[in-house]
Amino acid sequence: MLMDKIIAIHEQDSDVICQPGIGWMELNDILKQKGIPLFFPLDPGPGATIGGMLSTGCSGTNAVRYGTARAEWFLNATVVLPSGEVIKTRRRARKSSAGFDTTKLFIGAEGTLGIVTEVTIRLAPLLPTTVAVVQFPDVRKATEAVSEIINSGVGIQCVELCDDQFMKATNLNGQSSRKWPEQDSLFFKFQGPTPRALQETADIVKKITQKHGGTGFTLARSEKEAADLWQDRKNALWSSMALIPGARAWSTDVCVPPSRLPDLVYGTKEDLEAHGIPFTIVGHVGDGNFHALLLFTNDEELERARAAVGRMIHRALALDGTCTGEHGVGIGKRDYLREELGAGTVALMKTIKKAIDPLNLFNPGKVYPDEEKPEEVKKVDLVPHA
Amino acid sequence: MLMDKIIAIHEQDSDVICQPGIGWMELNDILKQKGIPLFFPLDPGPGATIGGMLSTGCSGTNAVRYGTARAEWFLNATVVLPSGEVIKTRRRARKSSAGFDTTKLFIGAEGTLGIVTEVTIRLAPLLPTTVAVVQFPDVRKATEAVSEIINSGVGIQCVELCDDQFMKATNLNGQSSRKWPEQDSLFFKFQGPTPRALQETADIVKKITQKHGGTGFTLARSEKEAADLWQDRKNALWSSMALIPGARAWSTDVCVPPSRLPDLVYGTKEDLEAHGIPFTIVGHVGDGNFHALLLFTNDEELERARAAVGRMIHRALALDGTCTGEHGVGIGKRDYLREELGAGTVALMKTIKKAIDPLNLFNPGKVYPDEEKPEEVKKVDLVPHA
Repeated sequence: MLMDKIIAIHEQDSDVICQPGIGWMELNDILKQKGIPLFFPLDPGPGATIGGMLSTGCSGTNAVRYGTARAEWFLNATVVLPSGEVIKTRRRARKSSAGFDTTKLFIGAEGTLGIVTEVTIRLAPLLPTTVAVVQFPDVRKATEAVSEIINSGVGIQCVELCDDQFMKATNLNGQSSRKWPEQDSLFFKFQGPTPRALQETADIVKKITQKHGGTGFTLARSEKEAADLWQDRKNALWSSMALIPGARAWSTDVCVPPSRLPDLVYGTKEDLEAHGIPFTIVGHVGDGNFHALLLFTNDEELERARAAVGRMIHRALALDGTCTGEHGVGIGKRDYLREELGAGTVALMKTIKKAIDPLNLFNPGKVYPDEEKPEEVKKVDLVPHA
Repeated sequence: MLMDKIIAIHEQDSDVICQPGIGWMELNDILKQKGIPLFFPLDPGPGATIGGMLSTGCSGTNAVRYGTARAEWFLNATVVLPSGEVIKTRRRARKSSAGFDTTKLFIGAEGTLGIVTEVTIRLAPLLPTTVAVVQFPDVRKATEAVSEIINSGVGIQCVELCDDQFMKATNLNGQSSRKWPEQDSLFFKFQGPTPRALQETADIVKKITQKHGGTGFTLARSEKEAADLWQDRKNALWSSMALIPGARAWSTDVCVPPSRLPDLVYGTKEDLEAHGIPFTIVGHVGDGNFHALLLFTNDEELERARAAVGRMIHRALALDGTCTGEHGVGIGKRDYLREELGAGTVALMKTIKKAIDPLNLFNPGKVYPDEEKPEEVKKVDLVPHA
């Protein structure tokens, strides 16, 4: 059973009731075919389903404009609890202050607290967009420009940082015939109600980027050109992997406060170069989140990559960041949660898990770290479960 | 101890670390005095503190643009748990997928799960705004216009519905000397990066409102006039109470999917008129949320108002709405939670309360309904607390 049905579309309310197995791209295609000028604006990897997006608390390139799955895109969820009981977390109203929001409990819980069988999700208006690309002398200048652009209030749907290595990979392996300067670059997607609004945004962005050392500002002259430019960013994984024949890629997703992104990127590049690990970087720079794609071809290189990822996570945590900006914890990042959140917060998460799923039936072994330090066990014991 | 300090302002990251006792207006004033062009965009009642806003999961007139406290405005919270342990729910990164978000657990919990001692909150760019007012033949036409305007993607910071009764109260008691047509009206606050963007928004909004029967579109010609026009909306409580000398007001806050708002408003007006209860209506129409201000001068009238509020809540629930869009549950709305959320969801909330606060130490008697139906008690027993 795929559980991929759309149950109801409420155009005037900008919401959809659907099952969790439907993909976000499929859902958006159906809305387009029906001539409904709305879309679900969370955009993680192309294969993601609505249920998976809820369970990982996902985000993507659109998060700088629309926030993440942890905001208010999921209005309610119908959930089978470990007890077998089926609940619906909230009504279809856009807002409610009726107690703490139990929908949020399942967002990012990676299936450990319940099985989602139906959701109501909000849609956003589908607006005209266009794309621009600009080069910078370095990552710090690019980051400073982004901060000023976002604070100007113009319509930015996406702003992506692509480092010099990524631009090189795109020149070598990209689908488009365009050859880019091999410099740290920003890819913008502008959004606005009218062509005039898009042009005004482009003018303001061009001026701010120039002020911060940006060069070669290129604005798409047509929808087709915009799609082509954006495709160069979207092909990140394939262009990067083609740098080394037969390579596989490890994609990281640490996230820090945006002002600290340059330190994180510089520290990471230095470390990867020192250890001879080939890589490219593409980042959701407006949110302080980036993906380093570490390339490896054999087990020895894989182990070197793994060690570098560990160092990258500690570097992000030292900058007040997180081990995972959007991919989730799963098994691989459980061991970083205590360092990131503190033993008390992890104990609280486990207290809730234990209260809802006392027999540990749902997705056991995921999210929660296994072992507890002796002093933490003592603290948990102070909270008896009556 | 007021606990109203600002700990740190990070302008480039658009966030602030502060204590919960500071008011949102005070915080925004301080940012303005420092020349920082950012603000905290949640705008409940003027006296609200950051801690109270977190605890009720508040919102206000800006929610149509910025969402509510349940979105991602609270990046993290430092919380004293009932066990005495102090935790910090998350780091300062804007995004994280490190498990379910324990910050969200305390938003809307009304102090029943923990005492918040410090928060990191996100700020938004402070942009130029202006104000427009337009009259409609009825609430349905106004609601349809709002839906089309929001889907056009223009910069709407607020859109407020004021009914004919409210416009009458404003003419009688408003601070401004302006006399309004006593018709159902919309008050808009437009927002944009430049004066040209604001003018474009005004042109598009005027056209759409006219298509839906709107008349008398009035756009402020100066900042001063914009402030005056908006003041007429902001004086809702005082203008309305002055309709009847010595009256007090009961403010309701039901919320439904926006397309159902007209049915809710018409049903409510009919009911209040039939029972001879004086009232005005002001609503956050973009979110399907409205406040009916029911006026009363003695105990008998208070009881009549109370009964009408109960009927209004059942009417909202029948339209897939909530008993409280932004005010919270407290004591008064506990008894509606099972009807709104279902016994299973309420039991889940109580399971979490019991796991975190087994001795019921924190804000006892609030939020959670007291008595459980026999069959619900049985279901809860299926989830043993090991």
